[in-house]
Amino acid sequence: MVALRLPSLTLFIVSVRSSPIFRRPHRLQIPLKRPFASISSDFSTQSTAKKETRPEIEERRQSPKPGQEGTITPLSQDFNAWYLDVIANAELADYGPVRGTMVIRPYGYAIWEAIQDYLNVKFKETGHSNMYFPQFIPYSFIEKEASHVEGFSPELALVTIGGGKELEEKLVVRPTSETIVNHMFTQWIHSYRDLPLMVNQWANVTRWEMRTKPFVRTLEFLWQEGHTAHATPEDAENEALQMINVYKKFAYEEAAIPVIVGRKSRVETFAGASRTYTIEAMMGDRKALQAGTSHNLGQNFSRAFGTQFTDENGQRQHVWQTSWAISTRFIGGIIMTHGDDAGLMLPPNLAPIQVVIVPIWKKADEKTGVLNAASFVEKVLKTAEIKVKVDGSDQKTPGWKFNFWEMKGVPLRIEIGPRDVSSGTVVISRRDVPGKQGKVFGISMESPILETYVKEKLDEIQSSLLERAISYRDSNIVDVSSYDELKVAISQGKWARGPWSASDAEELKVKEETGATIRCFPFEQPQGMKTCFMTGNAAEEIAIFAKSY
Amino acid sequence: MVALRLPSLTLFIVSVRSSPIFRRPHRLQIPLKRPFASISSDFSTQSTAKKETRPEIEERRQSPKPGQEGTITPLSQDFNAWYLDVIANAELADYGPVRGTMVIRPYGYAIWEAIQDYLNVKFKETGHSNMYFPQFIPYSFIEKEASHVEGFSPELALVTIGGGKELEEKLVVRPTSETIVNHMFTQWIHSYRDLPLMVNQWANVTRWEMRTKPFVRTLEFLWQEGHTAHATPEDAENEALQMINVYKKFAYEEAAIPVIVGRKSRVETFAGASRTYTIEAMMGDRKALQAGTSHNLGQNFSRAFGTQFTDENGQRQHVWQTSWAISTRFIGGIIMTHGDDAGLMLPPNLAPIQVVIVPIWKKADEKTGVLNAASFVEKVLKTAEIKVKVDGSDQKTPGWKFNFWEMKGVPLRIEIGPRDVSSGTVVISRRDVPGKQGKVFGISMESPILETYVKEKLDEIQSSLLERAISYRDSNIVDVSSYDELKVAISQGKWARGPWSASDAEELKVKEETGATIRCFPFEQPQGMKTCFMTGNAAEEIAIFAKSY
Repeated sequence: MVALRLPSLTLFIVSVRSSPIFRRPHRLQIPLKRPFASISSDFSTQSTAKKETRPEIEERRQSPKPGQEGTITPLSQDFNAWYLDVIANAELADYGPVRGTMVIRPYGYAIWEAIQDYLNVKFKETGHSNMYFPQFIPYSFIEKEASHVEGFSPELALVTIGGGKELEEKLVVRPTSETIVNHMFTQWIHSYRDLPLMVNQWANVTRWEMRTKPFVRTLEFLWQEGHTAHATPEDAENEALQMINVYKKFAYEEAAIPVIVGRKSRVETFAGASRTYTIEAMMGDRKALQAGTSHNLGQNFSRAFGTQFTDENGQRQHVWQTSWAISTRFIGGIIMTHGDDAGLMLPPNLAPIQVVIVPIWKKADEKTGVLNAASFVEKVLKTAEIKVKVDGSDQKTPGWKFNFWEMKGVPLRIEIGPRDVSSGTVVISRRDVPGKQGKVFGISMESPILETYVKEKLDEIQSSLLERAISYRDSNIVDVSSYDELKVAISQGKWARGPWSASDAEELKVKEETGATIRCFPFEQPQGMKTCFMTGNAAEEIAIFAKSY
Repeated sequence: MVALRLPSLTLFIVSVRSSPIFRRPHRLQIPLKRPFASISSDFSTQSTAKKETRPEIEERRQSPKPGQEGTITPLSQDFNAWYLDVIANAELADYGPVRGTMVIRPYGYAIWEAIQDYLNVKFKETGHSNMYFPQFIPYSFIEKEASHVEGFSPELALVTIGGGKELEEKLVVRPTSETIVNHMFTQWIHSYRDLPLMVNQWANVTRWEMRTKPFVRTLEFLWQEGHTAHATPEDAENEALQMINVYKKFAYEEAAIPVIVGRKSRVETFAGASRTYTIEAMMGDRKALQAGTSHNLGQNFSRAFGTQFTDENGQRQHVWQTSWAISTRFIGGIIMTHGDDAGLMLPPNLAPIQVVIVPIWKKADEKTGVLNAASFVEKVLKTAEIKVKVDGSDQKTPGWKFNFWEMKGVPLRIEIGPRDVSSGTVVISRRDVPGKQGKVFGISMESPILETYVKEKLDEIQSSLLERAISYRDSNIVDVSSYDELKVAISQGKWARGPWSASDAEELKVKEETGATIRCFPFEQPQGMKTCFMTGNAAEEIAIFAKSY
């Protein structure tokens, strides 16, 4: 996974310094802006707007010294610093002025748009309609469902003043919408003919988190939340399963992330749910990331809010519900699954730019021919609906551009120099295969050949990223048959998988002693009865334990 | 515009009561839920969550009496009541639990999605990238630009408690994002090479409005806000003009709303802008709706926030900025421009359902043939990318369905009965041409013929809605050459257009005395110098005055 990057700049380096490959590109023009890494601790502790007034930063901003530049911390050296460096250098996100908030920059947001485009189609295909619920929820709503209030009340943001006046009732800025959804459902659901009611919204949500990290855990984040109501518990269960499978398919096929699908333990179940299904992804540091969840809410909220319907026999019944969500956290998952020392590596299906074209010339009289060829190739690929960008600026050297677009994770690079123009061919390099091995010369720039070649390569990269992630994941899960074995596995940073039928208290003890939690009881289970590695009692299921984000 | 609706149910009425045509459809299943009209005053005054505990509503909800039904108040009788009835009956939106908030229901949200789909493409074509800024803004930011704080401070929602603790600095829930955008721009903009910087976000915003109305003015609403920074005042001005023209084209071509484009008076200019451009639409009650604005912000925010760049000569300069927005208010504009006594009338380009197919049968043995034909036609139209829905339920009569889908504003209805099945034809009715005149028999259901016919009709309806709205608008604008003439025009509910070079104080006096404000100085101006109708002084421009939402 963390393959050593070989320099791939051997051919066209014009004025690259003899320094580390993974330099901070010049183009960022903000060489002295502190990269994420150096203020990573600030992300949790900086207070509102303080940054504005720190004179040292003001001064730096006003007198950039282009000679100096940042670097990306090697992934193997410090995973967290690497993560923050990648986010800053690839311009995915930046810190907002309020502690723990994040600005999602165009390149990061384009990944989110690709996620939305895919999921929106799937949600509609499975019968859901988009809509929008207000984000302000009366405080009393949150209190109605006992475990919900217990889970969410510590992390609420409250509006207490509106239009210059103290409000009679505090308003919660939605941390999730089950309560207000139920309030509205009571008004729309009357008989079994109104069921199932299946809606989704794309929205921002707020949770007052103490320890934050860009994308993974921020005070405000973007997500979609699906909410459904059904006439029977079976219908709700099928819906919860259907949606976790939509997420799984998305993770595998689009994000190339081989998530493990399963059921959460009681301890880890969503506040207010009867059952929570999850997709768990292994990051490059082998920590688990809960990348999406689908909840069977049973009748917990419908009983709290009185969401009832008249069934076919004229009886009043409470509806059975689900909710399910994927958030901008998923972008963090993509970064931490595929990235390497050179920076970001994006799966082609979600990459905002799938192919970057770098025209290369030395003499002025070569420039026009090379740029024309680049435009021609751009047009060929655009017509084939490939997301392509030409980097034809003359501010930077080809070598600088190679590094820059590798750092931005663009799956394929096309190089066009004067010799290529003469021969009507291009050079194509894969982001996921460093150096000469990933580089092919002499591909025709003519439409059917080039288009087919590029599409095949993008598909290959997509598959290759998934395969690599699968083998990384599988080589880092250890089957354990005792608590001691679990402790060893966890201490080595791995995931531990073993039969489990112990109590909630024992689960919490594992967490306390090892830092690992039950990520899920995976859907894929070995046959037959097993013996709980903790208690020695019979166990019906194996569980997966890991440290997590 | 407000043509008298003729009944179009002559053929297939099976069990329609001999009562007003514009009844509330049975299917809503919530006959005793109070429609918007009857609680319209509550929208501004109801207090948080009170509804939950009103026993009378609880009781009604639990014992629906299907025999009773609501009606849509005739538009000519009470425009406001009509508007609220349409929103409730067409299931566009509902009240949220917090005063002044609104739930956008799937049918209303689908219109918003159509608006987003169109504008997103145009924004990207004109060089803008989507991104996302946090919604919490430090209170101190709002205070930095003098006129901005003056304009917005009365309507702010403030978060004062987070994670159970009183915050050191109150946070503003964004009413608009110029301040936080500038805070971030200072970190991203360094030299002229970073300009222009052109971004957009789709987001929710909060303004603590006292008098609210669904879609038109709500406490929280959805919008897009574009923000750009440029190296010269000319570039900023061109951008502001470009974007108001994108809005104008959208209004005319997609929404069939013939907006008048112009510049706002100083009094009506956005808090913090140097110049505001607007598109003003005439509603069915002849009130003006400000449907979109584009602001040239000059250096107002860049000076307040220190957003500077180094120009080509190495000099530090403040950037020149714009911002521009269209919101869910636009949906209110569509309702109030095209609707009639029968309910909503949607322009085909934005309609979530462009064609509804109503299969008609009396005997059981006719049912299969008719439903099969409906499926066939549905497939033909879907393949042609027409948004089509079959209403094949046997709960409702064809007559009921005709009324229901007319009320929902679906542009075309296709009827298929047993005789049509035999002849391989369908009957097609236009929503915008009531009764027999809008109905054509014997259109072949075969693919190329039907597809061509339906597409032509949809185009015709789209044009026809626009033409109708243009003639309605033009017949309700009066050219005035004295203040008395203006008073007469305004008192008749019309718009007044006349030369104006008077003071801000005189503009405010007009407002006080007549209720009308300057909607804009339209871009289309008559040649030559004119005489101000208020002062008798020379005037360079004519202005348009109207009462507005």
